[in-house]
Amino acid sequence: MQLIESIKEFGGWLNRYTHDSSTCNCTMTFSVYLPPQAAEGKVPAVYWLSGLTCTDDNVRTKAGAQRYAAELGIALVMPDTSPRGDDVPDVPERYDLGKGAGFYVNATQAPWSQHYQMYDYVTRELPVLVEAELPLIPGVKSITGHSMGGHGALICALKEAGAYRSVSAFSPICHPTICGWGEGCFGAYLGDDKESWKRYDAVELIRAGAEKIPLFIDQGTGDEFLAEQLYPQDLEAICAERGFPLTLRRQEGYDHSYHFIGTFIGEHLAYHAKALLA
Amino acid sequence: MQLIESIKEFGGWLNRYTHDSSTCNCTMTFSVYLPPQAAEGKVPAVYWLSGLTCTDDNVRTKAGAQRYAAELGIALVMPDTSPRGDDVPDVPERYDLGKGAGFYVNATQAPWSQHYQMYDYVTRELPVLVEAELPLIPGVKSITGHSMGGHGALICALKEAGAYRSVSAFSPICHPTICGWGEGCFGAYLGDDKESWKRYDAVELIRAGAEKIPLFIDQGTGDEFLAEQLYPQDLEAICAERGFPLTLRRQEGYDHSYHFIGTFIGEHLAYHAKALLA
Repeated sequence: MQLIESIKEFGGWLNRYTHDSSTCNCTMTFSVYLPPQAAEGKVPAVYWLSGLTCTDDNVRTKAGAQRYAAELGIALVMPDTSPRGDDVPDVPERYDLGKGAGFYVNATQAPWSQHYQMYDYVTRELPVLVEAELPLIPGVKSITGHSMGGHGALICALKEAGAYRSVSAFSPICHPTICGWGEGCFGAYLGDDKESWKRYDAVELIRAGAEKIPLFIDQGTGDEFLAEQLYPQDLEAICAERGFPLTLRRQEGYDHSYHFIGTFIGEHLAYHAKALLA
Repeated sequence: MQLIESIKEFGGWLNRYTHDSSTCNCTMTFSVYLPPQAAEGKVPAVYWLSGLTCTDDNVRTKAGAQRYAAELGIALVMPDTSPRGDDVPDVPERYDLGKGAGFYVNATQAPWSQHYQMYDYVTRELPVLVEAELPLIPGVKSITGHSMGGHGALICALKEAGAYRSVSAFSPICHPTICGWGEGCFGAYLGDDKESWKRYDAVELIRAGAEKIPLFIDQGTGDEFLAEQLYPQDLEAICAERGFPLTLRRQEGYDHSYHFIGTFIGEHLAYHAKALLA
């Protein structure tokens, strides 16, 4: 793990690292914001999973999250959205498949399976690495994200019972097995057997009996992808059916952008801090 | 003046407009953040002048300023950094001359003088326009900016006595007539007579007896442009000599980026709000 950039911000440090990922079989880049409190002792971490087309750069530049992390004394861990490098398969003409679109699954199909192992990367390799190398309290972590990364945050928390103290999401792709973005990626990465897709779908994981953890979600009503891609109503229905704890806030007039995220990220980080610092 | 984009943020609206500028002889684009309070009545405005290579987009995306503007009930007016369009002269291989580098002067030299009238644009045409069309309190405005835009904010406040309730700057180019960036632009836009350059130089304006207004400046000590381009020590010296009120904070370890701006923009906007809402 190599530090390639370090920028002072809100009294803490916004660092960028690269490392050779054994999970993704390539060099991966990620950012970590260490709040001022990390200079005095270990702090808990919130993982942020980004959406389609993003790298680690979008959230660190546009969300305004570091201010709240500094106030609350929590680190932010911001991975990339896919494997990277010249050897990594891609479909350059598509923003919603290949690089920038790892969808937080472990691909089983050629040519994707050699590198596209983002589920294991974000839930296993990355936490082990950063907890070993940085002033983070081992095992004390929460997770959130946006759009494809909101989907990622939900499935990580639903599949890894007990691993995350709390989970939230902005405009998540709630039911990827039935929306265009999800179908496109799952078909490529996981193959034709749609039963295998359900292991990476928040609605289907709850239907299959995932252990309960409260879900905290913000969704803009002016979101340009709401009707076609996100299906929060399906998550709402399955949670109601199964008595699964869900707080879904429909935020009037907000869109899908980082301006929406920035407006509510403070409340999300405060929510996570309450669970992490309890 | 045409509204071309409107994004809800912190309960207010981040709008982008275009208009035919009679000052710059081209179509200009700018953004305005209207806080929630603007739905109920007129609000004061802080003008943000951006640095080299920027458009109106950088600050609205990266500074995290809208949160504070919403809390304080002030609008943000964010102009572009130069005239734009195919007819506008440029030096594409240089980031520090031509488009993106208007330097907030009124050019007197061909081919620049036909469009590069950014001083009059930001101090005259733009305020008249937005005060006529938007819920802004006429004449109640402050100004700030970054780097080239910090220079711009300082000279606007120093030259337009009484026009701005308060002024601040991040990492301003304090003494452009003696630094590379300033010399390059001033020579092109204003010609060889260096006396004419002094009318757009904060240090020289104070030396020449500008009316006093407190200057509030943040400067990172880790700023990669500090030694070669910014010369805050010259501003400090002339202010000390003339008894000109200056608060210059050297912020240990901070760089020239929007991460630095984001860290302190809340304090700057609170400073302006105090003057604007008094």
